[in-house]
Amino acid sequence: MPEFLELLPPLEALDKLLTNYSPKFELESVLTDNSSGRIIGEPVIASYPLPSFPRTTVDGYAVIASNTHGASESLPAYLTHIGEVPMGDVPNFEIAANQCATIHTGGMLPKGADASVMIENTQRVGDGEIEILRAVAKGENVLQIGEDVSEGQEVILKGKKLRPAEIGGLMALGITKIKVALKPLVGIISSGDEVVEPQDNMNPGQVRDVNSYSLKALVEAAGGIAKNYGIVSDTLESMRLTANLALEECDLVIITAGSSASTRDLTAQVIDELGEPGVLVHGVNVRPGKPTILGICDGKPMIGLPGNPVSALVIAGLFVVPLIEKMTGQLPGRPKPSVPARLNLNLSSQAGREDWIAVKLIETKEGFLADPIFGRSNLIFTLASADGLIRIPPDANGLEIGAIVNVRLL
Amino acid sequence: MPEFLELLPPLEALDKLLTNYSPKFELESVLTDNSSGRIIGEPVIASYPLPSFPRTTVDGYAVIASNTHGASESLPAYLTHIGEVPMGDVPNFEIAANQCATIHTGGMLPKGADASVMIENTQRVGDGEIEILRAVAKGENVLQIGEDVSEGQEVILKGKKLRPAEIGGLMALGITKIKVALKPLVGIISSGDEVVEPQDNMNPGQVRDVNSYSLKALVEAAGGIAKNYGIVSDTLESMRLTANLALEECDLVIITAGSSASTRDLTAQVIDELGEPGVLVHGVNVRPGKPTILGICDGKPMIGLPGNPVSALVIAGLFVVPLIEKMTGQLPGRPKPSVPARLNLNLSSQAGREDWIAVKLIETKEGFLADPIFGRSNLIFTLASADGLIRIPPDANGLEIGAIVNVRLL
Repeated sequence: MPEFLELLPPLEALDKLLTNYSPKFELESVLTDNSSGRIIGEPVIASYPLPSFPRTTVDGYAVIASNTHGASESLPAYLTHIGEVPMGDVPNFEIAANQCATIHTGGMLPKGADASVMIENTQRVGDGEIEILRAVAKGENVLQIGEDVSEGQEVILKGKKLRPAEIGGLMALGITKIKVALKPLVGIISSGDEVVEPQDNMNPGQVRDVNSYSLKALVEAAGGIAKNYGIVSDTLESMRLTANLALEECDLVIITAGSSASTRDLTAQVIDELGEPGVLVHGVNVRPGKPTILGICDGKPMIGLPGNPVSALVIAGLFVVPLIEKMTGQLPGRPKPSVPARLNLNLSSQAGREDWIAVKLIETKEGFLADPIFGRSNLIFTLASADGLIRIPPDANGLEIGAIVNVRLL
Repeated sequence: MPEFLELLPPLEALDKLLTNYSPKFELESVLTDNSSGRIIGEPVIASYPLPSFPRTTVDGYAVIASNTHGASESLPAYLTHIGEVPMGDVPNFEIAANQCATIHTGGMLPKGADASVMIENTQRVGDGEIEILRAVAKGENVLQIGEDVSEGQEVILKGKKLRPAEIGGLMALGITKIKVALKPLVGIISSGDEVVEPQDNMNPGQVRDVNSYSLKALVEAAGGIAKNYGIVSDTLESMRLTANLALEECDLVIITAGSSASTRDLTAQVIDELGEPGVLVHGVNVRPGKPTILGICDGKPMIGLPGNPVSALVIAGLFVVPLIEKMTGQLPGRPKPSVPARLNLNLSSQAGREDWIAVKLIETKEGFLADPIFGRSNLIFTLASADGLIRIPPDANGLEIGAIVNVRLL
């Protein structure tokens, strides 16, 4: 089989694809309120410090710390109560020696004061006098200006995925509109003369299209927009026609080949015809997913995925997801959601090949067990019943029972 | 402080909330194509087996296995070639003794045949004769009817979150429409006289609303729909009015209290007034987030979250997310996305209290290091710069440097 003369390990294959690809980053403005999960396209610089005024972190009294020194339950300090700090406003008084004022958590420390005493450590005595039962140090129970963020500080790096905390941080700075990476449009083409649409009647010998829909869900979870081009028949002419249209309209095109070698060859031929340099990688040393094709056509990536639904999803996770991350300018190195688990049997693997094994997670008192599901890559429900995948690296002959494995959640 | 007389551990507090709450499950019909991430509201039963016909898994020849027995490169078996199996159709011939037919991966095994020989193990000789160079066993290279799924099998459990693989599986069965849990509507109320909307001008002493927006993002990522009710002032009257409206319109109401004790007391009072049984938990033995209030008002949960933005997000992760999971009927026990890492310093903790510490992950050759970020719970950028949280359980006095910790990804 000439297509598999040179099988690259997955990481090398990915590297070859990514280094040959220079995405054109496009940004769009969105409301911060609608930006969850998007990739920020510009660094965020704080235009003012947070907090922007000295804030107390407790309910109690604003004081001059030195006035409380030596104070204890048996020998309290006595301070004159001169008022209450209004929430959300500037106090219209200053604290002078041996004075204090009521303050609520989040309130602005009045001028003159340099610490707060918790109400639990005080006692109100008679008219306008407060007993301080515990000394405080200068700055105690106070957030200083800029303690969270200083003016001019870069608080969110370009390329960060926006989570609830980043959205909160942007709002804290009054940034209600931001620039995010445009979602890449990903064209998906299914092929195979035996494949019919899920809603169509199915005759004996036919199967329903799985890949267009599972891949669409995967692409959208990864931050792309999927556009399905339906099922093309196993001829060069029809695949070329649809692939050409998809390549014009989209930023990335995925073709899930029919499962036979001849249709895989069609995919490679089409990728080679549609632009330069064409096919970069033909065959990857991984199971499942050996017949993977990676290419670039005049600046746009085209991926030929195996037709088997499990292979298609596993390989899309290895190549399409990192591509979308690069297309949206995501910072590298963000860990993949996973769970450590103990392998509950021995797994063998061919040295030199990277294997991905579907596992169920079984909860025990000692943590999770990883229970491999043995099913061929043609069986979509193998993956639907799995919680995640474990990787057997190319330099291993397998994994031993009891080994702690990192289950990458599906 | 009467509010904290009885501090429950977080897990007990959650259990008390969940056992007192019976959600009314409501379902809606959606296209399977639009169901990614939704919770399926009915079990899925396969109405036909998959594959629904015997399919070959290789390119080669359909044969009767016994006709190949003993075949080898030096002593091939000779079979008569009688035709080619069409893709997506039923072969119009049967295989009789010592016959074979061309077949492509995914093609239907013709009647009479019981195995396939890979094309690599064959050779075409002269007119219509094929040399078989390697014996196959009965069933070899063939997927039997029902090998993926048998007729009547429950293939997706009710309550499962639909991922790409489930969506593919549904399509394989021709199920293009399904019932999923209605997304619960979650009302979010911010309070605090010092809090202003992010887009408003901010005067000295004021802060912008962070929690309404960070919580909205968290609620929507967890599968709910958030409805913001804006900022209410710190009076019983205004909080009661808005909380009452939110309780009528929503399935769950979150109030982020002003940060002072008096506004927290307001929240508790409102929850007690608005329905039975009212407040169930007032104060949780966790840091950050001690002043958490959990209640049920006439069948709908109401949560009072601390006003500090870090506490609010951490506590929402501990209580709001599991509530939404229960409201949508999610199967329990799905592991939280996390990453194992090695702690890079000693952490102390008060025994009896559960602590959640924000950490950055640092990638090294030996895996990730967890680097704690020390910041008070008032500092939203503490969390925005963190990759995840680590838990110090109530029965521990801390964690030692070098310990392997499970970093729950934010």
